[in-house]
Amino acid sequence: MVSTSGWTVPQWRQYHAAATPAESLATLVALVAREQVAPSDPAWISLASPEELAHQFRVLCARPAAALLPLYGVPVAVKDNIDARGFATTAACPSFAYTPTEDSAVVARLRAAGAIIVGKTNMDQFATGLVGTRSPYGRTPCAFSAEHVSGGSSAGSGVVVARGTVPLALGTDTAGSGRVPAMLNNVIGLKPSLGVFSCAGVVPACKSLDCVSVFSLTVGDAQAAMSVLAHAETDPRDPYARVMPRAPLREFAPNRKLVVAVPTALEFYGEAHNPRLFHAAVETLQGMTDAEVVYRDIAPLLELAKCLYDGPWVAERWTATRAFLATNPPAADLDPTVLGIVKSGEPITATAAFEGEYKRRTILRRVEALLANVDVLVVPTAPLNPTMAAVAAEPVAVNSRQGTYTNFCNLADMAAVAVPSGFRPDGLPFGITFVGAKFTDYALLDVAQKFLAAHLPERLLGATQQRVGSGDVLDRTLPEPDMDACIELAVVGAHLSGLPLNWQLRQCQAVLRRATTTSACYRLYALPQNGPVAKPGLRRVTEDGAEIAVEVYAMPRVHFGDFLAMVPEPLAIGSCELADGTWVKGFVCEESGYASGATDITSFGGWRAYQQHKRAAKPF
Amino acid sequence: MVSTSGWTVPQWRQYHAAATPAESLATLVALVAREQVAPSDPAWISLASPEELAHQFRVLCARPAAALLPLYGVPVAVKDNIDARGFATTAACPSFAYTPTEDSAVVARLRAAGAIIVGKTNMDQFATGLVGTRSPYGRTPCAFSAEHVSGGSSAGSGVVVARGTVPLALGTDTAGSGRVPAMLNNVIGLKPSLGVFSCAGVVPACKSLDCVSVFSLTVGDAQAAMSVLAHAETDPRDPYARVMPRAPLREFAPNRKLVVAVPTALEFYGEAHNPRLFHAAVETLQGMTDAEVVYRDIAPLLELAKCLYDGPWVAERWTATRAFLATNPPAADLDPTVLGIVKSGEPITATAAFEGEYKRRTILRRVEALLANVDVLVVPTAPLNPTMAAVAAEPVAVNSRQGTYTNFCNLADMAAVAVPSGFRPDGLPFGITFVGAKFTDYALLDVAQKFLAAHLPERLLGATQQRVGSGDVLDRTLPEPDMDACIELAVVGAHLSGLPLNWQLRQCQAVLRRATTTSACYRLYALPQNGPVAKPGLRRVTEDGAEIAVEVYAMPRVHFGDFLAMVPEPLAIGSCELADGTWVKGFVCEESGYASGATDITSFGGWRAYQQHKRAAKPF
Repeated sequence: MVSTSGWTVPQWRQYHAAATPAESLATLVALVAREQVAPSDPAWISLASPEELAHQFRVLCARPAAALLPLYGVPVAVKDNIDARGFATTAACPSFAYTPTEDSAVVARLRAAGAIIVGKTNMDQFATGLVGTRSPYGRTPCAFSAEHVSGGSSAGSGVVVARGTVPLALGTDTAGSGRVPAMLNNVIGLKPSLGVFSCAGVVPACKSLDCVSVFSLTVGDAQAAMSVLAHAETDPRDPYARVMPRAPLREFAPNRKLVVAVPTALEFYGEAHNPRLFHAAVETLQGMTDAEVVYRDIAPLLELAKCLYDGPWVAERWTATRAFLATNPPAADLDPTVLGIVKSGEPITATAAFEGEYKRRTILRRVEALLANVDVLVVPTAPLNPTMAAVAAEPVAVNSRQGTYTNFCNLADMAAVAVPSGFRPDGLPFGITFVGAKFTDYALLDVAQKFLAAHLPERLLGATQQRVGSGDVLDRTLPEPDMDACIELAVVGAHLSGLPLNWQLRQCQAVLRRATTTSACYRLYALPQNGPVAKPGLRRVTEDGAEIAVEVYAMPRVHFGDFLAMVPEPLAIGSCELADGTWVKGFVCEESGYASGATDITSFGGWRAYQQHKRAAKPF
Repeated sequence: MVSTSGWTVPQWRQYHAAATPAESLATLVALVAREQVAPSDPAWISLASPEELAHQFRVLCARPAAALLPLYGVPVAVKDNIDARGFATTAACPSFAYTPTEDSAVVARLRAAGAIIVGKTNMDQFATGLVGTRSPYGRTPCAFSAEHVSGGSSAGSGVVVARGTVPLALGTDTAGSGRVPAMLNNVIGLKPSLGVFSCAGVVPACKSLDCVSVFSLTVGDAQAAMSVLAHAETDPRDPYARVMPRAPLREFAPNRKLVVAVPTALEFYGEAHNPRLFHAAVETLQGMTDAEVVYRDIAPLLELAKCLYDGPWVAERWTATRAFLATNPPAADLDPTVLGIVKSGEPITATAAFEGEYKRRTILRRVEALLANVDVLVVPTAPLNPTMAAVAAEPVAVNSRQGTYTNFCNLADMAAVAVPSGFRPDGLPFGITFVGAKFTDYALLDVAQKFLAAHLPERLLGATQQRVGSGDVLDRTLPEPDMDACIELAVVGAHLSGLPLNWQLRQCQAVLRRATTTSACYRLYALPQNGPVAKPGLRRVTEDGAEIAVEVYAMPRVHFGDFLAMVPEPLAIGSCELADGTWVKGFVCEESGYASGATDITSFGGWRAYQQHKRAAKPF
């Protein structure tokens, strides 16, 4: 029997690539066979039967080139408020359960990418909670201690990833449900920008603020899931769906330091270990040469956070559940704390709803000022690692404290990535969250990767014995550029990868597509150097031409102007014929540039080769 | 005494330019002296005293280069729910009145542009109505008939523009208050995109849907006001303020026909004249060579319209007035119809508010589908020209009918321009409204201009005897381009104004800045023609250079990629030295383009001169 514990997406893909379909399926069946549902294991509410797994795998294998799919055969767990055909949806309330006739939008996208849904996970009922104890299916402990909560509401999803059972799990996140369990289980929690994952087929908590989230062992796997789940077209079934911009930010300002804001004052409610771990993380950020730490008073964000439960949005929870509650479900099916919160939404007036929205927008004006000239904000993911007993003693108060650094995020329309940040002396994990403006999701993953590389380069994944290896490294070709929104640009000189001006391409969010050569109709000149960076000039000729090495980038059209503004004379952006006879936009040179004082370097075949030759010729 | 009746902004500016300051002030004082406030004239609630006018004019003249300001000395009326220092704000409720200590954001911008505030206008109380009769200051008749209503809620503002008293007046528009009075008074009504004019200092009606609007006699004056009032920075005092994009759409697709959607079915509630006038307008649109009329079922928009009063948004009216109503104002100060509507908002629940918002967003998905591939929607501004008696008989029903084609607009986050569209046999005016996506305000003004030029080229302005002349012609240099968001581009060939490829610049929202020449370092070649459009190539030389005629455009950076994609080899965008020694981006040419088969046309000094020479040489 293969041990799959702690496998990341690339490890699963590597395994399936070498296995027969029968072996692959057997491994998935064996994985599920080792698991048990609540009450034996409160992390799972339901698991796929062997037949269900076989059915999914058969459907997958029937697709053309299935093995090339980015999540081919990768087992995924799904929070039980997200519809997946073949499983009941309970939202952790037995009498609420229904059998969906179709997949939620996110599950459909996962399956289309090759994933196998292995089971549905336990949660705080109706996604109302940050603890993981508010469920008639049982209280889910964290992966490190039976006495400590998993966090919630996406309790089981965080835990089954941390245990290494699955590399990816879906959660949802309205108040922090996709982040708090990430910290308490030492995994990655990606809370995307609102709307970029469709919520069609998800049981609403606060419909205007809900989003689906991703738990993973590594940053790389979170990126893979992000690029599968973000949709390029509006989903007509989700009125809050928004498309991810066609040219999303991939990296914050590559030509200057990343500006990371740290709160001037932090509240840990008397906890002693976590502040130290947070400060250690900040020290790492301060030590990163490509980052600058600044301090900001986040009072407006903390004020916004309070609006989530003290303001009118709790009425959305009542709106979402009142029809069900009117059926008088058995009391045993309802978590009393959740019921109390939901019912508190009933008497709220429309005036309070509108005034709450006015207040939110007024606070957001101060948030804008607070975050001016800041790329990302870093906060503790949660202040505490609560025990089951502490939550039982003060179910609302402890929960409320846990949302201190998460509740504001969706109200402020921000994206967030929660990452591990080391262990306390008691063996429990701590975590921090990077928060950015909407649609900075990919850039936040880039920050997360850079931080983890500096802070925990050898970290253990979740609660497994697997080390991260290259798991946090991002795939620089993701997300696949939308070529309708891009222009292909051939670069020939200092913009080539690794050369001094390549940052200009990254700043303009360009992605390398291929290295090739021009057609044999060009000559290349080293131009007289009149600045810090030496540059070549490409000349189209009718005879004595040669193929010159180029790299072709896809650059978003909207950023092309910014790029062009950085191109000095005698260089220009014109058209360039490639070896395969196609034409792309490319660097060309005015005749005046090479007419005198330039060196014909055509024989080197390209600028990089010429540069290497020059370096070799001048060893000192 | 000068007659200023019906003067447009350019006429006022022309007058002031020739007058002494004392004459200018005397003319403004005389203008106001001819006016009376309610009850004598229900259009005005208050008028500036001679002292107040003198004070405003003194402050204005003390500013450097005051006479160059775009609204220097132009008299403007302001709806009485918008704060202006020196006037009480009543919102048409005497006991609500207060004396603002500072200008509203819009009045401040008008004054900064040189405008003189001459008075405050009557309105449906608390901006709740589309009739102009719901005011203790009296019922405002339209400018054409004492028996017919002015429309509302911006009743007086529409009327004093129509009478020719002032060329510009501010209204507000939540449900149609800036458009219905425009139709009933034969003037232009600009309802901008939500948030692009700050609402700071405006008494709210439905705070989430309110906007300030503009009445003017001509499209040109509406454009002038738009460019003064749209703010480039967020106003921290208005939580709903949004900045106009830095590169706003100026014109819908110049290289294809404008797609105008007409509703498949229209409701005029038995009115016989207005449908004929609407169809005449549609016939004009069908006859315009640069427009294409398509038919669309606007049921989703009509459904959305009903949400405004049948849905939760009426609770915003209660939210805005409840503190005042709690003071038990005298019954005589309150319009009973308005009071009834406002109080109906009190019992609405937060659940209804959230469900209303979910419904709105769900309908918007259908609206998106309905308006796919459509540039503008054209609708009747209002179905009826109601009599005072009809409104008195059915105050809510008539009002509700009048909102049929306006109520949806702010709920759908759309911009609109209401324009005159001819007169009925009874001498009353009819009007149509062009509706477009948010931030298409300038492009809608362009459509309005094109329609009026085709439909009513000799129209009378408002209720005056002035003909439009060139009043509807837009100023193509407005809005002033934000140079930080633009790149200057020198064009040398077929992109010059009037030449075959100039549309590519317009399509990319570029604005002509100046005509000049290159430095004397260039030669120009007529390239061998290999397509439908002949093109020159610019060559930088170290000797025997000449100055070549160019036009310099400001092109928004975000559109530069789209432009570059249209540039074929051997042309390229590089850098170009101008006669004044500055460098801008500009068209250059690869040597391969002019190396063989090209004609040196440097001696002509530019492409346009060469083209003229060629035409002159080949008269047939």
